[in-house]
Amino acid sequence: MHKPLSTGATIGILGGGQLGRMLSVAAARLGFRSHIFEPGIGCPASHVADQLTTASYTDTDALQRFAETVDVITYEFENIPTSALDVLEQVATIRPGREALRISQDRLTEKDFLNSLGLKTAPYAAIDDAPALGAALNAFGTAAILKTRRFGYDGKGQVRLQPDSDPQAAVADLAGQAALLEGFVDFSHEVSVIGARGADGAVCCFDPGENVHSNGILRTTTLPARLSAAQRMDAVLLTANILNALDYVGVMGVELFVTSEGLIVNEIAPRVHNSGHWTQNGCVVDQFEQHIRAIADWPLGDGTRHCDVVMENLIGDDMGRIGTIVKDPTSAVHLYGKAEIKPGRKMGHVNRIVPAQTRKV
Amino acid sequence: MHKPLSTGATIGILGGGQLGRMLSVAAARLGFRSHIFEPGIGCPASHVADQLTTASYTDTDALQRFAETVDVITYEFENIPTSALDVLEQVATIRPGREALRISQDRLTEKDFLNSLGLKTAPYAAIDDAPALGAALNAFGTAAILKTRRFGYDGKGQVRLQPDSDPQAAVADLAGQAALLEGFVDFSHEVSVIGARGADGAVCCFDPGENVHSNGILRTTTLPARLSAAQRMDAVLLTANILNALDYVGVMGVELFVTSEGLIVNEIAPRVHNSGHWTQNGCVVDQFEQHIRAIADWPLGDGTRHCDVVMENLIGDDMGRIGTIVKDPTSAVHLYGKAEIKPGRKMGHVNRIVPAQTRKV
Repeated sequence: MHKPLSTGATIGILGGGQLGRMLSVAAARLGFRSHIFEPGIGCPASHVADQLTTASYTDTDALQRFAETVDVITYEFENIPTSALDVLEQVATIRPGREALRISQDRLTEKDFLNSLGLKTAPYAAIDDAPALGAALNAFGTAAILKTRRFGYDGKGQVRLQPDSDPQAAVADLAGQAALLEGFVDFSHEVSVIGARGADGAVCCFDPGENVHSNGILRTTTLPARLSAAQRMDAVLLTANILNALDYVGVMGVELFVTSEGLIVNEIAPRVHNSGHWTQNGCVVDQFEQHIRAIADWPLGDGTRHCDVVMENLIGDDMGRIGTIVKDPTSAVHLYGKAEIKPGRKMGHVNRIVPAQTRKV
Repeated sequence: MHKPLSTGATIGILGGGQLGRMLSVAAARLGFRSHIFEPGIGCPASHVADQLTTASYTDTDALQRFAETVDVITYEFENIPTSALDVLEQVATIRPGREALRISQDRLTEKDFLNSLGLKTAPYAAIDDAPALGAALNAFGTAAILKTRRFGYDGKGQVRLQPDSDPQAAVADLAGQAALLEGFVDFSHEVSVIGARGADGAVCCFDPGENVHSNGILRTTTLPARLSAAQRMDAVLLTANILNALDYVGVMGVELFVTSEGLIVNEIAPRVHNSGHWTQNGCVVDQFEQHIRAIADWPLGDGTRHCDVVMENLIGDDMGRIGTIVKDPTSAVHLYGKAEIKPGRKMGHVNRIVPAQTRKV
């Protein structure tokens, strides 16, 4: 058993993007300081962090010094090089733990893990070469998606194939990266559960939100999601199943497809999640504070949703609408302080609070 | 007319305490960076600020350099030396403006100003010497409070006198500081209005909260306050009166005594105010963001209260209860990251959300 971190302790955060930024603010709200480790210059988290280390994940000395200044280490993204984790864990506790990272860094390992828990996923096959791909396309007999096993996010590293696509060309495009083929799932909509597990084993899940993506990027999350009471319960139970199996400490995002045959797990992310941003204006304790509470050995907060919310990501040129958005009385604005607007870049988000009298609960 | 500040602009904040800290977080939420100017080492705001200048208010060069890095200057306390403001205003706009500072820095000037607007205050008299104090004590004929005209806060610089108190001794204790005598007001309770005025002249007041003090320090603010509809309207109108008279830009706290003869203005503070901390969990846009919006020439946010709240300050040893408080599902915790617990020191606050079914509206 660990002791709860005292206020004044320092939380180390790997990654200085918007998730690190909002984790840093949540840490401060509980009296903690944050130290960001980020290779890029001028990162969003640095504006609200107590300390910043600008260095590469291959810089062993910088990693070592960073770890020595912090009381616990967490991260905003799952693709942290294993070699960096090896250095860090010699000095400080990493939460969530390495098993969650190992599993979520590889789509094949993740699918195997989820199925070992008895959870449903899309049909999938490991693809090592063109014959394997040809066989899998043939076996699925439907459109399918070829994905690199590692380092994919926001739809990157994915290509859609048909049963008659040329396996040689597709495998050549992978340029040697390990891959898997995922069969399509016939789903009506996607929801996600933001689950948290404390160091004491307590589990607390936020109400599932309904997600809409465009070009592989999340556009909106709507609360409440369209789910039956049984589906809502199932979503929570399967998330708890995953958290417990990993002896997980922190917040996890679990994306689920809703189908006529039940819920199918799309993917898991061992971190705070874009589809959980609505909690900032819908709950007393949001996903960021919940994560900090968990990794600091504090009791989890109450995640009850107190209003309906529609979260909308502000992507690229969406920032052109900001002048109108800030005039909307129902809109809580969260901007990331990114210097340059680029197509596809997440610049901020808006949580629109749905007035009680128009709720559709 | 000014142009709205673009996201990415830098807000300069004089003072690095908890108010500067929460202003800094609110600025970040709108995509701004903050630069804190603070003489003290290890200030709470520095943990969440983009830049920090540690220097004295008499350091002209440091003030000059600070002002050159920011797009607008604001402050978390009203007792900024006039000489520092003289330097700063040559380089950058100070909001709220100097007239609000001039008036609120001197209790006598403030009382004269409020009365000039037709607002009621406690009876008061300028005290320059013992004969003046003797005459005033005699004229009031009740217990009264002798206050220094400048640099008082949280009950500091105040002494309670009776009609038969020794004016010589009381004036000697002032050690040459200018003072005024305030007669007691027979009030049932104290409320405060957090008002905001935008650069466009728009006024938005948060719902009045009811304050309870102990030893001169705010303990709790409860929403809703006990006020009739007419009193509530009067509180808002008189706050707007003050804001408009000063051509004010930003958030102001207005403390009011509730008496059988109507509302009496206790004092005004040209800044975000402890009694407005409840807005963090009771409104879509809180007092800190409202202040940043105003000084950045953005439209004011909607300050509608969406739930009942009791704000409790965590002072000194109250921090011993933090382990219990964080387990309370209705409590939103806000800690200031102060290293050392001292008696009377504000360490944080808790906003307790009152569930809708038990509301007393």
